[in-house]
Amino acid sequence: MNAESAAQFRAGPVVALCGGIGGAKLALGLNRLLGKNLTVVVNTGDDFEHLGLHISPDIDTVVYTLAGLNDPERGWGHADESWNFMQALRELGSETWFQLGDRDLAMHVERTRALQSGVSLTDFTASIARHLKIPSAVLPMTDDHVETVVITEEGPLSFQRYFVGLQCRPAVRRLEFKNAQNAAASSAVLSALRNPDLAAVIICPSNPYLSIDPILAIPGIRKTLDEIKAPIIAVSPLIGGQAVKGPTAKIMAELGLPADSGTIARHYPFLKGLIVDKVDRGEVSEIGLPVHAASTLMRSLADRDRLAGECLRFAAQLANAVEGSG
Amino acid sequence: MNAESAAQFRAGPVVALCGGIGGAKLALGLNRLLGKNLTVVVNTGDDFEHLGLHISPDIDTVVYTLAGLNDPERGWGHADESWNFMQALRELGSETWFQLGDRDLAMHVERTRALQSGVSLTDFTASIARHLKIPSAVLPMTDDHVETVVITEEGPLSFQRYFVGLQCRPAVRRLEFKNAQNAAASSAVLSALRNPDLAAVIICPSNPYLSIDPILAIPGIRKTLDEIKAPIIAVSPLIGGQAVKGPTAKIMAELGLPADSGTIARHYPFLKGLIVDKVDRGEVSEIGLPVHAASTLMRSLADRDRLAGECLRFAAQLANAVEGSG
Repeated sequence: MNAESAAQFRAGPVVALCGGIGGAKLALGLNRLLGKNLTVVVNTGDDFEHLGLHISPDIDTVVYTLAGLNDPERGWGHADESWNFMQALRELGSETWFQLGDRDLAMHVERTRALQSGVSLTDFTASIARHLKIPSAVLPMTDDHVETVVITEEGPLSFQRYFVGLQCRPAVRRLEFKNAQNAAASSAVLSALRNPDLAAVIICPSNPYLSIDPILAIPGIRKTLDEIKAPIIAVSPLIGGQAVKGPTAKIMAELGLPADSGTIARHYPFLKGLIVDKVDRGEVSEIGLPVHAASTLMRSLADRDRLAGECLRFAAQLANAVEGSG
Repeated sequence: MNAESAAQFRAGPVVALCGGIGGAKLALGLNRLLGKNLTVVVNTGDDFEHLGLHISPDIDTVVYTLAGLNDPERGWGHADESWNFMQALRELGSETWFQLGDRDLAMHVERTRALQSGVSLTDFTASIARHLKIPSAVLPMTDDHVETVVITEEGPLSFQRYFVGLQCRPAVRRLEFKNAQNAAASSAVLSALRNPDLAAVIICPSNPYLSIDPILAIPGIRKTLDEIKAPIIAVSPLIGGQAVKGPTAKIMAELGLPADSGTIARHYPFLKGLIVDKVDRGEVSEIGLPVHAASTLMRSLADRDRLAGECLRFAAQLANAVEGSG
């Protein structure tokens, strides 16, 4: 952590809403600047049971990324990974469409065992984060079962079937988040959002439809976001109408939405400000919200730190503006 | 398979009773000579749940050995194994006293999933053997839970705690096979033993106390062995009063039994003949049973084939002698 930056952001606690790979990059920068002043609330709509193991893809991506254990090339999974489990599974005639690395398996085996013995996903994730010396709090959006279902032209598909099995090829008509209406935001998530000292909520540049909407589909979280005073900002996942990775722009086209910053801004009704990439400056006037233009492509660790810093400064400006006008 | 040998042993089906490493070597030789005419009944008293996974150490050793996938140096586990799962587990702060290789994990994950979905251990093992193209039938001794407990001077110990955790150091007073009295021999095991064409039952050179006794502790198996007409022979696990591997001689000393062929012969009351190592020829006169002396140390694949052949010939002689005298 850069000492100057750390001092600069002693303003107060921050909550980030996050999906997988793209979002985790910004979460890492925030984690480096804020340490234990950061709470990352992570999508669990992609969680599923595979080979009898409970897999939480987005939590694992965030945990591995914040612990410095992620594979920087592949984006998901554990660095220095080997695939001998998969090869042996193939020899035994089992399903092998979903890749599970040998190191990564330790997480799934331990999580499955913990959940089966009655430990909550929240407590298990906290214990893993402690062991891996992650300063920030990493919280699943809920301990209840929520299941993202992708309604496509070929019918409803489970998230992993759509995302991994069919590599996002079928055209999306809409998304469903099964059981989200009945899911409780965990008390840890609500405490973080209701903290009277909360400085900002930052929506990471994750896919709004697949990764952020499941979080917002939990009534307790959505209601709290509608009520809190701290500025809520988002970093657009689009750069020049394209996502850095993943099917965001493709899904926007399939949903009949222009793939631009305005659409992202309108997607989050509680938003107080949007960070767009510098190449999208031209769209700023149509957004109807305070906008900050930044380089949102995060190639290096320095990029992550820089964008995290810009998020915090932008949120602080918005907070001051509200106080000034109040 | 050697064509001559195969032709030679077309006499009829054979059942082998088997524990782990030592027994599996002979089972491999028998498998090569007999193919689908062999049924291997395997100890499951060492089975246990670890990290939420159902581990069947002896079944896995037999399956890997017959499939040519075993590690020839280590004796247990999968060849070309890697240990990245264990390393990641250590990083997560989990228990790491029991080594699970990355390839080996595929077996445990698949078995756990199968058992949880209601598949029997017998059917799961058969399906794995089919996938790995093992011609012989590999049968767990029972589908019921039987648990070997080692009663030591330091108190009762679970098998794996004694065998792996404490490396067989505590002195053994006696063995208990929890639930064996209530365990049913599977219908597959009973059918194999009750086959009217059965040519022989061969007790592999496994540890009689830890590996074979759990099989015999199941009333249905013991009763059937007492009744069948086919000759039951054993290969002594001792060579010059020592086991090739494992604590057989140490346990015999702790139980106050001489570590010799006579003790092995008396241990199996239904025995019709014993194969001892050539170095133990001198003990033959005291055994009170037909004895065949052979080189029982199995270093090479040829050794396994040769000893398997001698077992089958010795059993055939015993069967002919009974017929001749009848």
